[in-house]
Amino acid sequence: MIYRLYDYLPSGNGYKVRLTLRQLGLPYELIEVDIKTGESRTEAFLAKNPNGRIPLLEVPGRGYLSESHAIIEFLAEGSALVPREAFERARMRQWLCFEQYNLEPNVGTVRYWLASLKKSPAELGEKLIEKRREGFAALGVLERGLAGQAFLAGGSYSLADIALYAYTHVAPEGGFALDAYPAIRAWCERVAAQPGHVPITSR
Amino acid sequence: MIYRLYDYLPSGNGYKVRLTLRQLGLPYELIEVDIKTGESRTEAFLAKNPNGRIPLLEVPGRGYLSESHAIIEFLAEGSALVPREAFERARMRQWLCFEQYNLEPNVGTVRYWLASLKKSPAELGEKLIEKRREGFAALGVLERGLAGQAFLAGGSYSLADIALYAYTHVAPEGGFALDAYPAIRAWCERVAAQPGHVPITSR
Repeated sequence: MIYRLYDYLPSGNGYKVRLTLRQLGLPYELIEVDIKTGESRTEAFLAKNPNGRIPLLEVPGRGYLSESHAIIEFLAEGSALVPREAFERARMRQWLCFEQYNLEPNVGTVRYWLASLKKSPAELGEKLIEKRREGFAALGVLERGLAGQAFLAGGSYSLADIALYAYTHVAPEGGFALDAYPAIRAWCERVAAQPGHVPITSR
Repeated sequence: MIYRLYDYLPSGNGYKVRLTLRQLGLPYELIEVDIKTGESRTEAFLAKNPNGRIPLLEVPGRGYLSESHAIIEFLAEGSALVPREAFERARMRQWLCFEQYNLEPNVGTVRYWLASLKKSPAELGEKLIEKRREGFAALGVLERGLAGQAFLAGGSYSLADIALYAYTHVAPEGGFALDAYPAIRAWCERVAAQPGHVPITSR
């Protein structure tokens, strides 16, 4: 059985899935979808995911699964990437939720606007200012969460680290300098040093 | 052992936790936090949750857990509210992610602006128009997901139904009429008919 992954290589959400697949040693076929030209909003794609987003995992014999965090939990259940203890597993999920609500819509979206869509700060105006403020606030919460800790949950590398790393390590591409966040920078180095680590645009 | 829940009664995110606690028969102590007057941003509260948000669950002997979906998964693990089969459990989580990314920030936030903060559409301007468009798009995805299905995942009532119901059933308070969504309306009735169901502002 080979998973099929519909993905856009610069996507941090897609990267979470590719990194998890690689670190778990799971083979997969990659289908590239160019979200910039609307390939995730065609009728054919919407039939697979009515929400019109990547990453999307096709599980042979079962169907399509969307949402990066639902996908990585599905892939990693029972592995060393998920803490065995219930409260630490909940802590991992707390960080996953935080990422999708506070970090990705700000740090990730600004990076997409500036680095992928090549928009100018002038045309983004007030929306950019608000997302910068919210994005830096999220980075502050992450910095505080990492104080004195090597990893985010369970005392070892988990899906929480994979998910938070995805957009945080490329935050400077959206103009979010990480100089003022020493705990985040040290943690990024620890994540990048994990066995089987691959960079964001790896297929 | 008694859980302690820090919450704001009109909150849909808080309601997910209260409804889960009630339907699992778990006793808890409720501490009300008035988010409108900044009670979730005091130094004392930020020491419990650096992200300054409710709901927040205090687990005796372990610590504080934030993020509604991390909390309800922690409470319901191994119960009938979580599908036993891996792919259906992943489907449940897919809907949880969708709720926090597409539904709550639009349908929930507009309801908070209009019903709780009593802002006028005029002062909200373009932000309201954008969130209305995104909110109706999310309701469309939910309607399509419910077509021909009694519940969202695993063929029976699960955390996905609790989480999506929280803001959907009060969507009209934010000006999102549900008349054009017959599958959503029928599903809301099924959710409200579940044993142990309580209304949103229940303590």
